[in-house]
Amino acid sequence: MTRPLRYGMVGGGQDAFIGAVHRHAMALDHHYAFTAGALSSTPEKARRSGAALGLPDDRNYPTWEAMLEAELARPADERIDLVVIVTPNHVHYPVAQAFADAGIHVVSDKPLVHTSQQADDLVATVARTGVVFGVTYNYTGYPMVKEARALVRDGAIGALRKVIVGYHQGWLATKLEDDHQKQAAWRTDPARSGAAGAIGDIGSHAENLVATVTGLEIEAICADLTTFVPGRRLDDDGNLLLRYRGGAKGVLMASQVEIGHENDLAIQVYGETGSLTWRQEDPNVLWHAPLGEPTRLLQRGTPYLGEDAKRFTRLPSGHPEAYLEAFANVYREVAGAIRRHTAGDEPAGDFPTVRDGARGVRFIERTVASAASDAKWTPF
Amino acid sequence: MTRPLRYGMVGGGQDAFIGAVHRHAMALDHHYAFTAGALSSTPEKARRSGAALGLPDDRNYPTWEAMLEAELARPADERIDLVVIVTPNHVHYPVAQAFADAGIHVVSDKPLVHTSQQADDLVATVARTGVVFGVTYNYTGYPMVKEARALVRDGAIGALRKVIVGYHQGWLATKLEDDHQKQAAWRTDPARSGAAGAIGDIGSHAENLVATVTGLEIEAICADLTTFVPGRRLDDDGNLLLRYRGGAKGVLMASQVEIGHENDLAIQVYGETGSLTWRQEDPNVLWHAPLGEPTRLLQRGTPYLGEDAKRFTRLPSGHPEAYLEAFANVYREVAGAIRRHTAGDEPAGDFPTVRDGARGVRFIERTVASAASDAKWTPF
Amino acid sequence: MTRPLRYGMVGGGQDAFIGAVHRHAMALDHHYAFTAGALSSTPEKARRSGAALGLPDDRNYPTWEAMLEAELARPADERIDLVVIVTPNHVHYPVAQAFADAGIHVVSDKPLVHTSQQADDLVATVARTGVVFGVTYNYTGYPMVKEARALVRDGAIGALRKVIVGYHQGWLATKLEDDHQKQAAWRTDPARSGAAGAIGDIGSHAENLVATVTGLEIEAICADLTTFVPGRRLDDDGNLLLRYRGGAKGVLMASQVEIGHENDLAIQVYGETGSLTWRQEDPNVLWHAPLGEPTRLLQRGTPYLGEDAKRFTRLPSGHPEAYLEAFANVYREVAGAIRRHTAGDEPAGDFPTVRDGARGVRFIERTVASAASDAKWTPF
Amino acid sequence: MTRPLRYGMVGGGQDAFIGAVHRHAMALDHHYAFTAGALSSTPEKARRSGAALGLPDDRNYPTWEAMLEAELARPADERIDLVVIVTPNHVHYPVAQAFADAGIHVVSDKPLVHTSQQADDLVATVARTGVVFGVTYNYTGYPMVKEARALVRDGAIGALRKVIVGYHQGWLATKLEDDHQKQAAWRTDPARSGAAGAIGDIGSHAENLVATVTGLEIEAICADLTTFVPGRRLDDDGNLLLRYRGGAKGVLMASQVEIGHENDLAIQVYGETGSLTWRQEDPNVLWHAPLGEPTRLLQRGTPYLGEDAKRFTRLPSGHPEAYLEAFANVYREVAGAIRRHTAGDEPAGDFPTVRDGARGVRFIERTVASAASDAKWTPF
Repeated sequence: MTRPLRYGMVGGGQDAFIGAVHRHAMALDHHYAFTAGALSSTPEKARRSGAALGLPDDRNYPTWEAMLEAELARPADERIDLVVIVTPNHVHYPVAQAFADAGIHVVSDKPLVHTSQQADDLVATVARTGVVFGVTYNYTGYPMVKEARALVRDGAIGALRKVIVGYHQGWLATKLEDDHQKQAAWRTDPARSGAAGAIGDIGSHAENLVATVTGLEIEAICADLTTFVPGRRLDDDGNLLLRYRGGAKGVLMASQVEIGHENDLAIQVYGETGSLTWRQEDPNVLWHAPLGEPTRLLQRGTPYLGEDAKRFTRLPSGHPEAYLEAFANVYREVAGAIRRHTAGDEPAGDFPTVRDGARGVRFIERTVASAASDAKWTPF
Repeated sequence: MTRPLRYGMVGGGQDAFIGAVHRHAMALDHHYAFTAGALSSTPEKARRSGAALGLPDDRNYPTWEAMLEAELARPADERIDLVVIVTPNHVHYPVAQAFADAGIHVVSDKPLVHTSQQADDLVATVARTGVVFGVTYNYTGYPMVKEARALVRDGAIGALRKVIVGYHQGWLATKLEDDHQKQAAWRTDPARSGAAGAIGDIGSHAENLVATVTGLEIEAICADLTTFVPGRRLDDDGNLLLRYRGGAKGVLMASQVEIGHENDLAIQVYGETGSLTWRQEDPNVLWHAPLGEPTRLLQRGTPYLGEDAKRFTRLPSGHPEAYLEAFANVYREVAGAIRRHTAGDEPAGDFPTVRDGARGVRFIERTVASAASDAKWTPF
Repeated sequence: MTRPLRYGMVGGGQDAFIGAVHRHAMALDHHYAFTAGALSSTPEKARRSGAALGLPDDRNYPTWEAMLEAELARPADERIDLVVIVTPNHVHYPVAQAFADAGIHVVSDKPLVHTSQQADDLVATVARTGVVFGVTYNYTGYPMVKEARALVRDGAIGALRKVIVGYHQGWLATKLEDDHQKQAAWRTDPARSGAAGAIGDIGSHAENLVATVTGLEIEAICADLTTFVPGRRLDDDGNLLLRYRGGAKGVLMASQVEIGHENDLAIQVYGETGSLTWRQEDPNVLWHAPLGEPTRLLQRGTPYLGEDAKRFTRLPSGHPEAYLEAFANVYREVAGAIRRHTAGDEPAGDFPTVRDGARGVRFIERTVASAASDAKWTPF
Repeated sequence: MTRPLRYGMVGGGQDAFIGAVHRHAMALDHHYAFTAGALSSTPEKARRSGAALGLPDDRNYPTWEAMLEAELARPADERIDLVVIVTPNHVHYPVAQAFADAGIHVVSDKPLVHTSQQADDLVATVARTGVVFGVTYNYTGYPMVKEARALVRDGAIGALRKVIVGYHQGWLATKLEDDHQKQAAWRTDPARSGAAGAIGDIGSHAENLVATVTGLEIEAICADLTTFVPGRRLDDDGNLLLRYRGGAKGVLMASQVEIGHENDLAIQVYGETGSLTWRQEDPNVLWHAPLGEPTRLLQRGTPYLGEDAKRFTRLPSGHPEAYLEAFANVYREVAGAIRRHTAGDEPAGDFPTVRDGARGVRFIERTVASAASDAKWTPF
């Protein structure tokens, strides 16, 4: 067994949500050791959070800048292998840029950064330094998403015609950001969240899911963004018509005011000879409707699935896997890439990279531009 | 027990689909007697079809014009009370116009006619002659659609924010019209179907369902229509963004190339304090999600439903009702209106009228206009 | 078009439930004319009910005896062709016996009679007079039940191993019979309902469904019957282990106190190479799980189904059919048999006959016997 | 942060299934350190497996006896805190007995042991030494099972009347044990699995689920066990009628030959004023049907749930949790109990104990006895 990769986390302290998810997901396959952290933008809180999580005092940093400096000062065989960025969005760029520039691998939460300019910078830095850079579009880690991707790629539903993707939530149907709810507060604050609300937070997941499963490239966007909750500063609902290169069409819906939905990400892909349907809240199954035949219910963990789905499956069929395992699948692939990088091999892997992240940022930008435009179609 | 209303049917002969559905639906409550018919545009086929269905020879007409003339020549107490038009769309207008003008009540299939000009003519004729005029937007006859309408009206989900409606079919995923399939042939022929394909045939049902349940009025449309099957002459897929008066938003999808869907009409209505979800293929239930509480599964036939749902329910809960009963509910209401008209009362009823039909035609027209426009929003 | 069959109904007057269902189902295909009736055991109520339903005065009888006598006095070409018995159970036997004996065809509701002795009498009478005798185990009229039967027969799931059937209701969870609810009152009264409550009323439907779909013959029964509601005089819950000839096993559950269920009849059939699952409240689909392959969702109205399912289908796929059509399918087959009888042909048809009814009575008797026995297995 | 508990694992080497699940579940909350192991009954394979998993050479034992001896020889602050037994069933007893006797805490997989005599021995040993002893009836670790238990306890569905529990699998529908499938081989071998097949392997889970949710105590059992696959040496299908103290009734089904089911454990609990339904393959929801009101869909992670459900929830609603987290919940509670034991407090916790395990063994024994008996009811 090879040694665990040492990681330093930025963000993810007390009151945070997603940081703990990352730590659990990283722990699942024993590829990672939680070695260092700068867990909050408030130094005191950062230190308090790190102590509570058992970080050794000398690697429990008050700031990410301190972490970067101190870790670089350590010998290479003690230094963190990667930084994991789980802060609000506006912090992603400086941290990712600094660590990637220093040759430390990076995993960043999504959306990657605030602007395409920043994204292009990161892409350039990664190209120059060769670090591994993962972006946690975690939903593409589900085995049945891998199966959907394989079925599309292998022609099981023929040439693609249409995609409907929706990411439906209801948790921001009221002005939760006024109740000192931290998750709501930063997500609705343009300074921290970026130019978009629902479209940035969850619409970009939907974009990534479509791109992963279908490989389709957006040609033009027609977006209508709405802020339904009075006084909110960013969109909480967005609906898009999409044109893909080659003639396929799309509908993308992302909302955080649709009461009755929890975290309802779902995709339907229609081709000339069949369709596929998958839903995140029921992730162990994939529906495949072949033209003129009964619809088939494909289940995770069964022998009839393809290699990709099998490779990302941990438990037998009927023993449900869920969000945590999908998240861990992204990290398992990142670990493999880092190990290959260390071994001098091509650091490839089946995970979303900085390029996916950059495309996601561009998606948000062009959606916001379309929403502000009187023209029907805004080129991508 | 009052006497059954005598009806003459135009269209609905051999090889037709929807004519028999109308006849079954009309028979269900014993309000109607099938008295006369001109069942095909081919006189010989019309006569053959009528004979097979047991029409007496002297009221088994070769053409609708012959039916109109002969019926008017009969004494009033023998004459048909209403004409039922179940032809391809292009025949609706002349027949409806002629019979309404002659003071005979009309039920027409949808979409009402090809153009708003024709629709306005019919509205004017109806206003002048006072006949009862029903349009068989049959899906609004379902009891749980009535319940959804009542819940919205009574404020159960608060001020409306958003509607998602989809009418998903897959039966035209291949070029069925080349296989001498009569239903496919006329629906994809602009001369018979009108200016739109999927949007006219099923998108107009979706429009009517939203209007019925929510009362929302469309302010502007942004449409993308596609013909996916090569050589087809009308759209087989349409996706719309909608703006309603007062600020609500909508997404409307209508497709006949989405393999895996049979007749999948579904609506989700989101308000400030809850949401409602209903699906035609599972029509006996309605989902109601109140803010902050568990989602509720409302079932037809239960004591906790409102008066409207109860009034349109025939069987106890768990004894499923379906398409036929919903269709019959429209006809039951039309019968009531005709009887009230005969009695000299206001011929009101809970059924789609010529005005709903006219709005549906306008919806199709404006959608086609939007699809041809570079402007994002086409006013309604 | 041949003439409608004239029927006289016994029972089904005001306050009744199932009589109206029979009338609607019979009307659906225009094979029947409602010609005579003795609609209540209370002569005055019988007459009042018949008048409200439009029966002519001279065929609106105060009692079934009067109806029998008067109809027999009419010339054959005016006389009713069949009697339809929709009374509480205890009335089935004398009426069925008298009309069958007189050479008039019979349709009776289920369970057929109170005792196997009565059932044997009826079987003998039918054998002697040759009348058509249908029993309205209506659930076997569903097209997807026909499909399940065909798949089993054609070996699609291999040799049968096990059947689980449940008929779950909750409407008698409280002592509704004390509230002057007529349906509850007679069903919980041994004098009218017979020796069993839930097992007779709905358990016999479950037995019939298994026999229809699988052809399995019960060898022995192990039953536990319970009366949960204090003061109730018959069982309101029954659970059975079953042994079938040839080695298959079964579980049969019938309850009227399972809150949350409306009319939830469901069957699962397991064979050596696959399984089938069908549920009455979602009747348009049938699940087929072949060994080692994805489960398939079979839908009514599709081209891939067998001939039996197609023959009993009226509407295209996605246009749901339900309880009424299934009921009408039974009557359509009975009509065919009567017409064949009239033509001097073998009066066969795909409907439950007096023999199915007799087997159902025996099922109830043996279940009650098993429940009273300390022996595990009571032979059938 | 307190130190992780050191555990030694017995079984769970290469080709094993459930050992890895235990290790992942134990790792999830960082309460445990994988410190020692005797991972196979074949010493060479044990050593090879331990090496592959990174066990240090001096704690990678060839046998569990060697592990016990060597660990006891270590100073207390190095010694393993607990043993985790994940072997085939026949090994549970000697290992559990030896370690418990030595004062080392125990977690054992289910069913606990082969006979009630063995179970009683273990209960006595635990009573004497005071060790913490958990049994991994993992399905009771699901948050919505906790919610169901709380609702029953708090009277939300009134006095209990009936329970239906099923554990449906299809993976042993063919003679898999002949294909060198290790999981199938030992489970169908009486020497290793015990006196029962499906009833022991999965029926005991069903028994535990009912006991956990309802607190009902079995009074008598009526069982029918079947071996459907020719040549198999243990039952692969079992169906039971149950009588509980106080008058409630039950149906319990456990099968491994029901093709189409993966790991389909489901429970329905009916009371005087409502019912609850939960299914393991859709574990994040619980259905609650109150008498006379719409059925409610309760979702994990929502504010309206009770304290127990909340305490065992890790992710927000809509971010599905599954099998692994439920398993980890059992281990989290065991860790708490061990820590309380160490601190000198009462080692309580919300997890299945040796007493639950013993009752499960008795359930298997009495079921097998009932299946062999001609008497209908076998006392528990």
